Amino acid sequence: MKKVFNVCTIDEAKKLISDKFSNYEIDSEEVKLFESLNRYLAKPIFSKCDVPHFNRSTVDGYALMSKDVVGASESLPAFLKIVGEVEMGYDAKTNINHGEAIYVPTGGVLPTGADCVVMIEDTDQLNGDDLFVYTKLAPKENVLFKGEDIKIGEQVLDRGSLIGPQDLGVLASIGYETVEVYKKLKFTVISTGDEVVSPNVTPKIGEIRDINSYTISGVILERNGYLVDFCVLRDQEGILKTTIINAITKSDIVIISGGSSVGNKDFTHKLLNEIESDSVFVHGIAIKPGKPSIFAKVRDKLIVGLPGQPASALIVFKTFIDHIEQVLIGSKAKPVFYIEATLTKNVHSTPGRETYQMVKIISTLQGYLAEPIYGKSGTITLIANALGFIKISANCEGLSADEIVKVYEL
Amino acid sequence: MKKVFNVCTIDEAKKLISDKFSNYEIDSEEVKLFESLNRYLAKPIFSKCDVPHFNRSTVDGYALMSKDVVGASESLPAFLKIVGEVEMGYDAKTNINHGEAIYVPTGGVLPTGADCVVMIEDTDQLNGDDLFVYTKLAPKENVLFKGEDIKIGEQVLDRGSLIGPQDLGVLASIGYETVEVYKKLKFTVISTGDEVVSPNVTPKIGEIRDINSYTISGVILERNGYLVDFCVLRDQEGILKTTIINAITKSDIVIISGGSSVGNKDFTHKLLNEIESDSVFVHGIAIKPGKPSIFAKVRDKLIVGLPGQPASALIVFKTFIDHIEQVLIGSKAKPVFYIEATLTKNVHSTPGRETYQMVKIISTLQGYLAEPIYGKSGTITLIANALGFIKISANCEGLSADEIVKVYEL
Repeated sequence: MKKVFNVCTIDEAKKLISDKFSNYEIDSEEVKLFESLNRYLAKPIFSKCDVPHFNRSTVDGYALMSKDVVGASESLPAFLKIVGEVEMGYDAKTNINHGEAIYVPTGGVLPTGADCVVMIEDTDQLNGDDLFVYTKLAPKENVLFKGEDIKIGEQVLDRGSLIGPQDLGVLASIGYETVEVYKKLKFTVISTGDEVVSPNVTPKIGEIRDINSYTISGVILERNGYLVDFCVLRDQEGILKTTIINAITKSDIVIISGGSSVGNKDFTHKLLNEIESDSVFVHGIAIKPGKPSIFAKVRDKLIVGLPGQPASALIVFKTFIDHIEQVLIGSKAKPVFYIEATLTKNVHSTPGRETYQMVKIISTLQGYLAEPIYGKSGTITLIANALGFIKISANCEGLSADEIVKVYEL
Repeated sequence: MKKVFNVCTIDEAKKLISDKFSNYEIDSEEVKLFESLNRYLAKPIFSKCDVPHFNRSTVDGYALMSKDVVGASESLPAFLKIVGEVEMGYDAKTNINHGEAIYVPTGGVLPTGADCVVMIEDTDQLNGDDLFVYTKLAPKENVLFKGEDIKIGEQVLDRGSLIGPQDLGVLASIGYETVEVYKKLKFTVISTGDEVVSPNVTPKIGEIRDINSYTISGVILERNGYLVDFCVLRDQEGILKTTIINAITKSDIVIISGGSSVGNKDFTHKLLNEIESDSVFVHGIAIKPGKPSIFAKVRDKLIVGLPGQPASALIVFKTFIDHIEQVLIGSKAKPVFYIEATLTKNVHSTPGRETYQMVKIISTLQGYLAEPIYGKSGTITLIANALGFIKISANCEGLSADEIVKVYEL
């Protein structure tokens, strides 16, 4: 029985990817701290120590007992005796008793006996050791207590967290020199088409240089994915089949561009179902450009069939890659950042399909302008000058010039 | 005469950096296409060829002369003779004469004589070679002409462009296998402080592990900068001076964290002016956190003095690094992307200083929530849980819960 594929929405396609790959497993590896940047944590991180591991002053001033300055004010200062100084980087040498104060720099150790630190601006040091304190203080004021920042055993980062620069600092602060992260997702990118040649070849009449394996691989590398291989193949069934089967063994995800529309020699769909029957679970997405896209699960690996047109292939890949990464790694969805801009021209949409329109972003004193880039299908200039894109929902008929739109980064 | 430094605004500080470093020169180098990702072009790129370099069909259909289908419609089709087929990847073997049509797949060569292509859906192939065409066509319809996408000699990318995935495709399409880019900006990161030790050391009472060299280096690596070196130093004038002088010879930018506030042992400012008199041109910025920040020009290199507090250091570096990169490389300002979120709590500001408040981003069905993260100064949890920050302008008194705010990525 021939299976009929209906065009599904972006959300439906994402749901199907989640359903098929929610149990996908990725190995982990131990890497040095700097190498963990932009990688996903394979285990939750628990602190091995208290941070700080001693009571610490948060200001330059005098450590003292808050009881000794009850009621102190500008007109009625408390009078204390300076009995020492804490040196930065060293433990306090002296304890504090009633009526005593010890100078502590910001970050210095709070001497035993003291429960707060008065800022130096609120004091006057008289001849020798005499100190006037012009303010009252609450217990704990201007002190960061042992473990107050991070407690020993406390979970600091979740499994699946994407490690950013601030997380390197957090990990360093609790003594992690290495960290266990998931291995990078492994991608193979295959550009197909009888007319497609490598960039180092001078194309003959009828041939064009490969674009998609460069744009798609670029997105993968930018996201810190591992590019196992990329190649350009003619639409020959035997070679393509062998290449896909080989790629599956070495990759988490195989991207095939071209060969997914209804033209003469488009047979990715047929080929994938030949390798494993019923492996294609999405064929056709309600997105413009990019309708003839394919998702398949072949031998437990995800195969993404992208259209041959460069702008379409890039849009579809960009639309799904966040979700794919989240499902395969089991990480949380990240917010997608944007800017708001004023549209310079009307944009028409295709009812029933979410429309992605490439735009140039122009910075003016009044704010950003989004200028739609039009061009014939398949042109590279459609994406060459684009810095972003706008989305028009499936049930919207289009947008008018002067409307404020959200522009996403391409 | 002692120079008095006034706190300047963020924009004033940026202007001063521009003024001091507008003529900074960076060497360029030739790299392979994939290595050029996220690098800046050192020369404008001109196309070495026409794209496409032959007239190309943009649809699956029949190439023909538009004159032959004038007035054709559903009820009154034009009648043509199919005289051949264009094979994908090869030149057309046959020319077209009046009354003739040749099958062309999407991307195939337009045969000589034809000036348009009718979509296959608008035709019926009868017995053998007979073709009914049910629509009229304008000249050039469904054809991408030679050079229509990119003309030979046309400038495709500007000097100073940041090369993204789509640009790799553009460069590949016009036959670039290598490209001349600016060398990566070279950074040295120095953390100072008598209490600061490396993460591999178990800190004694009074000591804390280094955080800033990890967070700041993380930002540098994330932006594809080159990290020459990073180190942790005690506040000893001699060693610090030697280290800075040495770093200057090897780096474009030297980052020093700690040592820029008014505490006991803070002497970055003094030290820089000792190495080169009047080298400090910004000391104090109207930003919270991060007021005690320094910019200096020492032996033609930019020195950035960041506060010791991790959150402050990160905020100040993030606020200025885009601008610094643009000035030193001579690239264009990029838009800064954000999301809109509903504030969950009131946020107070410091009048006269642009306030940066770290927030957690919480995703709900109704949209994003921005939850302010509060904590004592100097804590690492201030940034550990933050995914973004909001800005409160210098003349704003604060924000209320339920206000819609722009959240920028940390």
